[in-house]
Amino acid sequence: MICLFNMAIAQPPRGPLVVSPQVNADKSVTFRYLAPAASDVKLSAQFEKAPMPMSKDAQGIWSVTVPPVKPDIYPYSFQVDGITVMDPANVAFFPNERFKASLVDVPGETPLVHAMKDVPHGSVNYEYYPSLEGTTGSLVVYTPPGYDKNPSQTYPVYYLISGTTDTEETFFKVGRTNLILDNLIAEGKAKPMIIIMPYGNIAARLAEQKGGAKPADPTVRDGDDAVKRANDFGNDLISKVIPYVEKNYRAIANKNSRAIGGFSRGGGQTLRAAFGNMDKFAWVCSYSSYLSPAEMDKGFPQIGSSPDNTNRQLKLLWVSVGSDDFLYKGTVEFMDYLKAKKVNYKSLITDGGHTWMNVKRYVAETTPLLFR
Amino acid sequence: MICLFNMAIAQPPRGPLVVSPQVNADKSVTFRYLAPAASDVKLSAQFEKAPMPMSKDAQGIWSVTVPPVKPDIYPYSFQVDGITVMDPANVAFFPNERFKASLVDVPGETPLVHAMKDVPHGSVNYEYYPSLEGTTGSLVVYTPPGYDKNPSQTYPVYYLISGTTDTEETFFKVGRTNLILDNLIAEGKAKPMIIIMPYGNIAARLAEQKGGAKPADPTVRDGDDAVKRANDFGNDLISKVIPYVEKNYRAIANKNSRAIGGFSRGGGQTLRAAFGNMDKFAWVCSYSSYLSPAEMDKGFPQIGSSPDNTNRQLKLLWVSVGSDDFLYKGTVEFMDYLKAKKVNYKSLITDGGHTWMNVKRYVAETTPLLFR
Repeated sequence: MICLFNMAIAQPPRGPLVVSPQVNADKSVTFRYLAPAASDVKLSAQFEKAPMPMSKDAQGIWSVTVPPVKPDIYPYSFQVDGITVMDPANVAFFPNERFKASLVDVPGETPLVHAMKDVPHGSVNYEYYPSLEGTTGSLVVYTPPGYDKNPSQTYPVYYLISGTTDTEETFFKVGRTNLILDNLIAEGKAKPMIIIMPYGNIAARLAEQKGGAKPADPTVRDGDDAVKRANDFGNDLISKVIPYVEKNYRAIANKNSRAIGGFSRGGGQTLRAAFGNMDKFAWVCSYSSYLSPAEMDKGFPQIGSSPDNTNRQLKLLWVSVGSDDFLYKGTVEFMDYLKAKKVNYKSLITDGGHTWMNVKRYVAETTPLLFR
Repeated sequence: MICLFNMAIAQPPRGPLVVSPQVNADKSVTFRYLAPAASDVKLSAQFEKAPMPMSKDAQGIWSVTVPPVKPDIYPYSFQVDGITVMDPANVAFFPNERFKASLVDVPGETPLVHAMKDVPHGSVNYEYYPSLEGTTGSLVVYTPPGYDKNPSQTYPVYYLISGTTDTEETFFKVGRTNLILDNLIAEGKAKPMIIIMPYGNIAARLAEQKGGAKPADPTVRDGDDAVKRANDFGNDLISKVIPYVEKNYRAIANKNSRAIGGFSRGGGQTLRAAFGNMDKFAWVCSYSSYLSPAEMDKGFPQIGSSPDNTNRQLKLLWVSVGSDDFLYKGTVEFMDYLKAKKVNYKSLITDGGHTWMNVKRYVAETTPLLFR
């Protein structure tokens, strides 16, 4: 017998095909996980308050169908006998240093701002650059539609920094920043721009490439190591990343054509880099993050003490947060501080928490404001 | 008290920092996994024949140190009470449709061919292109060092297709094809070339984007669905991918400047696309794959019946396989068929199995031969 496909399977057969997640027409979603020997499997998804029990069929496939979900992209994982696992049947994943999650995309009746639409697409480039102390760093770079076709055109640049334990891929893979910009540019709502997505945890890379001591916990927020981490990131951005970008991309190399923004720790890094280098960035966006009044007074007193100067130097200072965010209170304090000091800022308080659903929304709200 | 870093952690604290994998100076490797409640954790790694038991410390961190490992990049996962999980502490992952694995990079005393070296680096681009039936496809594209600096230079193109259940990211993330080429080009061993890495499972994408029926199991190798899958891939490559590449990249658009290669299912797709379109590719590389004599005689009789013509049309036909590969026997049969028919080919039989360690080696062996 002639077997048409006898040439190539990657591994011996691996059990029944599991389709997961399956988004149904009514926006309910079915999740499935093959685990014949497991005794308890739950779905943990960011659209649910608590893990949802799943039930097992005769093949050993656990499943649950959740009621219609508000269209968005959500992280989720399975809890298998208490162990957190990604969905093996799903290639859409959440790049992160400390946890592993999958992503489910529930499309809207009309396409959402991050949806793949039939519009011209930019390109997402993975790049290496010479970083601090002789190490090699990595960047993810969005170039807008037409970048390669218009070799004489130059572009403004948005430096966009992801959160604690995220990687340089997170704004691309989870934030869909490229598709948001493709769509906004096609509608004439955002200016064509280059977006640079660096890795926020420079200290870990230095430790890895230089050998020696392993990096300290990136979520620990006090002490000498934390100070070094903050300094390393800012030094790398100003002395390495920006020169690399302005040499290798058709970037407009002046303050009014540079924006900086970030989420969570990246928002803190944003505020520090911007306030510490007022000659570098005219547009500043803090997503779900803040500096405390004490940090402002100690580290950046000139921002509040010379508000007219600050307001002249910054074309945009944006602060946004979700009302359920565990950083909500601190972020509101930061807004109150700016208000008391008469520093101009724009703010957006949304519902929701410290999530990438909110980050996508903030990116879509702020990028139309940049470089105007 | 002033807390320097109070602005930004992505989530509330998540237990002790786990460093894993840790490659030690003697090339032994320590793996760690936090699971206080688990009762049995093993390491499953492609350098070991069988899963290795791990032991738990007082914090609930399971660990094992494996003896010195031959330098290479290996997939691994943990078996936690029988459940397969990626290493949550490691961002290096194996993109795949059906399993989740992490990657450990054991460096050589002298840098291996896939190592990050201080040489000019090309760029890796994620692109969308208009595919079959109005769908949007995705490609990963390597452009060589200097591509953006030499706007009048044109380049040959290598179309490189990954295996069953792999994705368009696998040759980049697991195969390190970009770094292999950076290194070979820097040494003058390979010609600067563009490499196009498509997604091999077009049928699944069609099903997903067109709605309706879910795709059949991509590892099932017989029947109408399998035939459609093979045809879909070839049609997409010839009618959509190549025109997109030759319009949007500075590709030399002729047969002698087009190569095609692939691993496993991608090797089968390679041989079918090449033998079925003898006007399109002059350089053909099959990594760990083959077509059977029956398939050759039925689908591509002219290859063996007119060997002089075949030998004139193909500048390279390369076939490689590992001696422990489960496709070894079929691949040797394919070589014997070519020999009997007096079709010229080059072959390489290595040790090892159906692994990406071998794929990297084959890429490094073959790319210097292309476009000469």
